[in-house]
Amino acid sequence: MLERTIIQSRGCKNVTLPNGKPGFQFQIRNPNYRGVQASLVDGIDIKLDGLSYEFDSALWTLQGETYRLEQLRQSVDVRWQLDELATITLPVEQPIQCGVHDLFVCVFIRRPYIPAQFSRSPFKTSKKVVVVDKDDSASNIKLGVSTYSYSGDINTLMTLEDVMADMADIGASGLEMLSEGDIPGYPNISSTWLDNWFRLLDQYTLQPTNLGTWVDTNMWLDRDLTVAEGVAQIQKDLQIASQLGFSSIRPKFGVTSLDLLPHPIWREAVERSLELANKLNIVICPEIHSPTPIKHIVTQGYIDFIEETKTDHFKLIVDTGIFQTAPCDDGHEGIELKPGQKRPPFLEPLKVPMADLAEILPHVHFIQSKFFEVDDQLNDLHVPWSDIVQTLEANNWSGWLSSEYEGRRESYRGRDQIRRQHALLRSLLNQNNH
Amino acid sequence: MLERTIIQSRGCKNVTLPNGKPGFQFQIRNPNYRGVQASLVDGIDIKLDGLSYEFDSALWTLQGETYRLEQLRQSVDVRWQLDELATITLPVEQPIQCGVHDLFVCVFIRRPYIPAQFSRSPFKTSKKVVVVDKDDSASNIKLGVSTYSYSGDINTLMTLEDVMADMADIGASGLEMLSEGDIPGYPNISSTWLDNWFRLLDQYTLQPTNLGTWVDTNMWLDRDLTVAEGVAQIQKDLQIASQLGFSSIRPKFGVTSLDLLPHPIWREAVERSLELANKLNIVICPEIHSPTPIKHIVTQGYIDFIEETKTDHFKLIVDTGIFQTAPCDDGHEGIELKPGQKRPPFLEPLKVPMADLAEILPHVHFIQSKFFEVDDQLNDLHVPWSDIVQTLEANNWSGWLSSEYEGRRESYRGRDQIRRQHALLRSLLNQNNH
Repeated sequence: MLERTIIQSRGCKNVTLPNGKPGFQFQIRNPNYRGVQASLVDGIDIKLDGLSYEFDSALWTLQGETYRLEQLRQSVDVRWQLDELATITLPVEQPIQCGVHDLFVCVFIRRPYIPAQFSRSPFKTSKKVVVVDKDDSASNIKLGVSTYSYSGDINTLMTLEDVMADMADIGASGLEMLSEGDIPGYPNISSTWLDNWFRLLDQYTLQPTNLGTWVDTNMWLDRDLTVAEGVAQIQKDLQIASQLGFSSIRPKFGVTSLDLLPHPIWREAVERSLELANKLNIVICPEIHSPTPIKHIVTQGYIDFIEETKTDHFKLIVDTGIFQTAPCDDGHEGIELKPGQKRPPFLEPLKVPMADLAEILPHVHFIQSKFFEVDDQLNDLHVPWSDIVQTLEANNWSGWLSSEYEGRRESYRGRDQIRRQHALLRSLLNQNNH
Repeated sequence: MLERTIIQSRGCKNVTLPNGKPGFQFQIRNPNYRGVQASLVDGIDIKLDGLSYEFDSALWTLQGETYRLEQLRQSVDVRWQLDELATITLPVEQPIQCGVHDLFVCVFIRRPYIPAQFSRSPFKTSKKVVVVDKDDSASNIKLGVSTYSYSGDINTLMTLEDVMADMADIGASGLEMLSEGDIPGYPNISSTWLDNWFRLLDQYTLQPTNLGTWVDTNMWLDRDLTVAEGVAQIQKDLQIASQLGFSSIRPKFGVTSLDLLPHPIWREAVERSLELANKLNIVICPEIHSPTPIKHIVTQGYIDFIEETKTDHFKLIVDTGIFQTAPCDDGHEGIELKPGQKRPPFLEPLKVPMADLAEILPHVHFIQSKFFEVDDQLNDLHVPWSDIVQTLEANNWSGWLSSEYEGRRESYRGRDQIRRQHALLRSLLNQNNH
């Protein structure tokens, strides 16, 4: 689906013009209610970070061909359809900096059926757009995105393909997904869906990373899941992950305490699934998630399990929410506090020290880059990315940082915030590797 | 696509329960970020127009089967997927009145991976929903909808199929469409699109009515279209209309004056297309649109043309904006007034008398039910529907009233307003025919 705003988030980037000079490129959808002959397009005023550009400054790409305004005006068989985007390329003095920018446009379309005085119709709109610098040099850290970031928007405003196109647009290469969520008909997978899945992975050059799965131990009110049922669930999800090309699953067990002690079946259910995990070469990963810190019986229990079983198919996923330095009180849908009621403990910032992270890094398979808000200056309000990236690089950790936006679920906010977080992470990764 | 709000506009209606008593039915999407086993669904609090219903009052339909809450809780293989709607059926004392209603719901989903105190998660949401009474008795007036009503939402929030499903949901049977707008690749039509088009028409029991087309006489800045080019455009659109099953086209010519005098090529371009229109049995309809009233040289020119050519394939479309009794100053995208500048004449309410409408009705093929806002009490703020419907029925006019929402283009507002207008029109039609 196209984005509802006229200026699209996807596609904002620096380009090099044929003459070797820099250009700023973005995409807009047709602001009118009908498609038009391109000869009726009459230019676009642009203001970028306060700097204005004349209506005829930009190049227009429509239906695969690029035109100056004068060429558009004289064009015969070119159209700007309602379901097609126009790519606007603006010559600029310097490449635009990685980060958030204020973009205003006024698109002019001539409408012959409106009296001449009003026929050249101005369509004005503005948007904060995010430019992501994709130039990552040789880091062992790869950037991915979880579909969780787009919760509420997938199936309503965005298709899975839109999510994948967004990822590709910012140079992310790893796709994390939710089993019971993103796979229509889960746990059954249609061959049509599967064919399309591989086609899309190929088209957007994406690699499936981690598949979020669940073991709903309290699925029923009158009894808990048995170990055998837990095993069946994990094994089912291992098979699905393997079929779809994922390299790990994260079975989220039901919990039995405020600090997230997993349901006691976890150990046996995992142990009995290790052989299959090994055979399919898929790593089973419990998630270290706030309010469970690293120095904690739960995390220690997982590490003990690794050491006792000597398996290399059970490792940790760290959710960066545990490094939060400030609380985030919005965006937790389904958690409701009465007026005056204290924030539940699992929403308190844990501020886990970097030394603790460094200590367990050999056991960490995957990192969910949980975050809530990156502001216009690329400051994360809650999570200390600079410290985290430094710790990972200092310890030569290699693996995925998979973005997990969990802030307010306003329409398209995930899409925008993911771009901001990647702009931030890229700047940190590039900084340390140049 | 599903609607972004949890409560969906489509699907709100009265039903009769198996026990013969009345029920109120609506659809919700899963408010959580993941799909769940239905046994984790734990009821829904409902408040309808101020009246509260207990969390276990409603029936749930998931994946085609209907359950009481107790059955859901014990269910094993039922799921509430993220991309599937739940249908909620609430037993009520009396059928809900046709019109706008306040609906609040709190959906409970148990989440085993959240500590027990917070595990039963409440997801609250509310919405004004619109019930449309489909019980139309034998009127000659049929209700349709124009895709124009969903401008800005099609391709972004809704697919063409969503629009068609919305129409079917309120019992509309006529589909008006825009040629250069709704047909991908216009003027070329792919066979895949065409196959899907007929499948959808069949699925939603819709009849194509009028195809909105254009003759952009000022397509180029340096010269106007020639008569031959006008003929080519009209004939192309006649062929497309015929191929898609439409019964009329509305070629919108460029204008040459503030009161919308059409470009002089209109007459010859139409005349030279009448033979093809006759052969394909498609009526060519100019649009009588504000600021052109009925007693006006433009309208008279069209009627003279009909009488002179004795054709029955050139008739009038009346846009009900000409009956506006109050101005509407918002929602005219692309028309911009400077501060203090007078509203342009074509936005002044014309208040065309009903007697004028009655006089030309024999020439009127189709009515575009233009409107801007129907309020919570089903009052249209600008257009006198009661007078219009009475005039049409008193004169025994038969044809389509095709809804054309032209108010503010906020997300989903067209969808909501179309339901309101149909609720209003149904009540007027039913009132006069019972």
